[in-house]
Amino acid sequence: MDLEKIRHSASHVLASAVKELFSEAKLGIGPAIDDGFYYDFDLKHTLTPDDLKKLEEKMQEIIGKNLDFKKSKKTRNEAEKILKDEPYKLELLKNLPDNNITFYTHGSFTDLCAGPHVKNTKEIKAFKLLKIAGAYWKGDSKNKQLQRIYGIAFNSKKELEEYLKKLEEAEKRDHRKIGQQLELFFFHEYSPGSPFFEPKGTVIYNELLNFVREEYKKRGYQEVITPQIFNKALWETSGHWKHFKEDMFVLNVDNSEAALKPMNCPSHVLIFKNKIRSYRELPLRIADFCALHRNELRGVLGGLTRVRKFSQDDAHIFVTEEQIEKEILDLMDFIDTVYKKVFNFRYVVNLSTKPEKAMGDPKLWEKAEEALRNALNKKKIKFNIKEGEGAFYGPKIDFDIRDSLDRSWQLATIQLDFQMPLNFKATYEGKDGNKHTPIMIHRAILGSLERFIGILIEHYAGKLPLWLSPVQVRILTLTDRNEKFAGDVLKKLRDNNIRVELDDRSESIGKKVRDAQLEKIPLTITIGDKEQENKTLAIRTLDGKVKFGVKVEEFINDLLTEIKEKK
Amino acid sequence: MDLEKIRHSASHVLASAVKELFSEAKLGIGPAIDDGFYYDFDLKHTLTPDDLKKLEEKMQEIIGKNLDFKKSKKTRNEAEKILKDEPYKLELLKNLPDNNITFYTHGSFTDLCAGPHVKNTKEIKAFKLLKIAGAYWKGDSKNKQLQRIYGIAFNSKKELEEYLKKLEEAEKRDHRKIGQQLELFFFHEYSPGSPFFEPKGTVIYNELLNFVREEYKKRGYQEVITPQIFNKALWETSGHWKHFKEDMFVLNVDNSEAALKPMNCPSHVLIFKNKIRSYRELPLRIADFCALHRNELRGVLGGLTRVRKFSQDDAHIFVTEEQIEKEILDLMDFIDTVYKKVFNFRYVVNLSTKPEKAMGDPKLWEKAEEALRNALNKKKIKFNIKEGEGAFYGPKIDFDIRDSLDRSWQLATIQLDFQMPLNFKATYEGKDGNKHTPIMIHRAILGSLERFIGILIEHYAGKLPLWLSPVQVRILTLTDRNEKFAGDVLKKLRDNNIRVELDDRSESIGKKVRDAQLEKIPLTITIGDKEQENKTLAIRTLDGKVKFGVKVEEFINDLLTEIKEKK
Repeated sequence: MDLEKIRHSASHVLASAVKELFSEAKLGIGPAIDDGFYYDFDLKHTLTPDDLKKLEEKMQEIIGKNLDFKKSKKTRNEAEKILKDEPYKLELLKNLPDNNITFYTHGSFTDLCAGPHVKNTKEIKAFKLLKIAGAYWKGDSKNKQLQRIYGIAFNSKKELEEYLKKLEEAEKRDHRKIGQQLELFFFHEYSPGSPFFEPKGTVIYNELLNFVREEYKKRGYQEVITPQIFNKALWETSGHWKHFKEDMFVLNVDNSEAALKPMNCPSHVLIFKNKIRSYRELPLRIADFCALHRNELRGVLGGLTRVRKFSQDDAHIFVTEEQIEKEILDLMDFIDTVYKKVFNFRYVVNLSTKPEKAMGDPKLWEKAEEALRNALNKKKIKFNIKEGEGAFYGPKIDFDIRDSLDRSWQLATIQLDFQMPLNFKATYEGKDGNKHTPIMIHRAILGSLERFIGILIEHYAGKLPLWLSPVQVRILTLTDRNEKFAGDVLKKLRDNNIRVELDDRSESIGKKVRDAQLEKIPLTITIGDKEQENKTLAIRTLDGKVKFGVKVEEFINDLLTEIKEKK
Repeated sequence: MDLEKIRHSASHVLASAVKELFSEAKLGIGPAIDDGFYYDFDLKHTLTPDDLKKLEEKMQEIIGKNLDFKKSKKTRNEAEKILKDEPYKLELLKNLPDNNITFYTHGSFTDLCAGPHVKNTKEIKAFKLLKIAGAYWKGDSKNKQLQRIYGIAFNSKKELEEYLKKLEEAEKRDHRKIGQQLELFFFHEYSPGSPFFEPKGTVIYNELLNFVREEYKKRGYQEVITPQIFNKALWETSGHWKHFKEDMFVLNVDNSEAALKPMNCPSHVLIFKNKIRSYRELPLRIADFCALHRNELRGVLGGLTRVRKFSQDDAHIFVTEEQIEKEILDLMDFIDTVYKKVFNFRYVVNLSTKPEKAMGDPKLWEKAEEALRNALNKKKIKFNIKEGEGAFYGPKIDFDIRDSLDRSWQLATIQLDFQMPLNFKATYEGKDGNKHTPIMIHRAILGSLERFIGILIEHYAGKLPLWLSPVQVRILTLTDRNEKFAGDVLKKLRDNNIRVELDDRSESIGKKVRDAQLEKIPLTITIGDKEQENKTLAIRTLDGKVKFGVKVEEFINDLLTEIKEKK
């Protein structure tokens, strides 16, 4: 059974239930969405979780009546009559063409709607209302705020239960909650959407940067540091002034308009253009971790996944036509190393091809798409083709990354661009002595580091792998007598650049272990008289495995190997 | 003889010479400055270097007349008559009190001036005019641009010659010139004052960051990452909105005024305040490399020493009163490590004490100043006391760093602050269970990394120490036959994280060596048939020393030691 139909029908049932309980409610819109369905209501009474329970009961009652969904076509006059008490629906009606005004009815409830729906309410076998949120009419903060009820519906009770379980697990893993518990980051009203990374969060941030930099060294990338404020002349050339100005922070510099950069690409074209370039320098891979700013609406900001200030592991690669395939192969290897070998994410690959409004030479498009396909085939990677969904300036490969809860995130991206080098008149001298326009590859592996950290926290439920953990080892003393040996071990670990802490509080060992586990520290070392006597360690992992009698040097060596191999 | 008097008198002689050669010139101001003297003129004719020669001759002629400088006091009426053809001087006259209008005359030239001057022109024993520059009247870009002539004067020809030699050496070392030659950084009109660090410049930048981070690990600092845009509410509390707004980039965020941060301190107070703090956490050392922006006037921007975007090795240390002395001792050790052990700079230390307009408890001032003095004495550091020159919020220690040309730079600074924690109501729980206000230490070691890199380039004349060099080793092949062995050596060096390049062009070895030296690469390895046969290397340093028959492993070990020890 088609989930979308079920969910759309459930939203109608919800609306009919709201009308029965709160007859004065005015209806907004009520679509099925990826994650279920919602319906917006204009209602004086502020809805509470208790109301959701009552509404669920009412919905169950309506569904139990086995009502058919019936479609009907109306003239504009008829429709206006039906909707005379529904101001929001009347507004929607205005935008419908005369010959396409349809309604759906179940029981005594009728809604302006294009469908499709299930045949009968009995097909809604399992549903649940999830939460209430505010939502501006038409998503515009200048309009009135309505109350939105979110729900979910499935083909069976079993599916619903599985979904709710996953939802519960996801809530437990909410990176905002874990981020606060583990003192990783926080936000402040003085700078909405710009995270403060606390010392522990900064360790994670810098370890990720180091990891990417190590890969850059192996893969022939060159890092640069670039300005953040650019005169609008730059954004006019790049096209951002026309298409992206609303999303930029604009300010006045030297009596002229300028903007904080929302992306690095134009600055990298300036670097490319700073000297005469030869084909011998290509592929030229320019990488940058400069802070970026985007003026996201305040209402949509949330945790690390939607921020105003962030950095990307951003690079732009200038290549010749012939170099595309090899470069894409290398990028696939890069992405594999990061996502499969290190983080253990799965992913789905999508290739988006030439859209109708494409710019640039059709032959170049053909060759470039072939190069992308060849690279994917050579790597034996299955991929979906999204016909016509490329950008107007070039085809692209997207990676749908699946986390441990099987949620999908778009993180890595490889985007060919035939246009920007042309806009900036960027050229290189070819073997033939003539000037040629390079092709630019925009690509990110982790994407926004802020967002990636948010996703990692949820993927690992806060139990980060050893190499990323802000504190890798905590030493717990059993008694005061053990402080000297504990101090020696502490120093040895520190000298080996292991992030280690000492807990020598006069608390019980049980309490000390529990605290370390709450803080998700991967390894704890317990030191009592026995350990001190034998000069060995008792090691406990976060999942409770204990190993006794480990020699200090052996422990350090194992640890360093594990950290180096990013296990 | 007082240099200031000589230079001020030379500027008068210059003005009289200009009047003789260009009678229509209107006079601006003509003071002595740290680096010599200048005089501003409003003159239709655009002055050329040839004019400077002629003016020097004319000045020599005037000086040769052994003219006395005579002071005279005038009434406002008399003064207005004397200055009737000098509109700029008339403007200056307006701001003088009636009882303090004085003139100085030598020969037939009379100038509105408070003095002091030498007694006779013959005391100007050695001078030179250096350059012509544009300068707005009263330094305000809304006013007319005048022509400024810079000059220098000394007690003896010998001193002048030494100075000019140093000036020439400084010009050769100009970091803007070297930065371009070595492809370290550049500027672009789209973002005045914000440097682009090219790949090689970024290596230097990141190596400096790594160095500071290593020290932070040893010294108990915690790094954070902070927002860049803050609502004006923050700046109102910190006092920046009142005293520093002109220097900030202001923008509109969520329909409210906000600014790009010009310094990190208030954000670190927010981090301090983010949780309840205990005396056990102090000293709390918060470090940050976040980008800062200051809206410097476009006219004063120049190279890396005056920029709009920069990062500092900035930290704020929250301490109790009792912890000041120990913390200052640790900071002195930090500064010694950086400046004396690593970079080989000398420095002069200044302690600035309580000013008249000081805020805060006088007893706290006394104790704090005593702690600073004690720390300096314990370290056996000679220091100058600048009585009353501390900030209103606390005493400070400045370090006048002297580079290899004996030029003075103010880089490191330690600044106590009793006020900002009060403004933000930042407190910690003391041993007594009560709330106390911490003292905040603002301190920077390198200061602005951009500025520091500019100074380093000039200090070393571009010949950076091995650990900071963007390319540490270049391998030069003698013939095609040597490419295989050269490739093996290249790989071995790379595997050891040494920054190495291969020059296998079919150029003469002489040309290859010269190119490497122009690029100031510390070490070159020449590989010919003999080296290949013996599996050894011929190593050449930048100052031309050559060592033959070095084993690869031995070379790598020596290199790694030298890099690690930052020699």
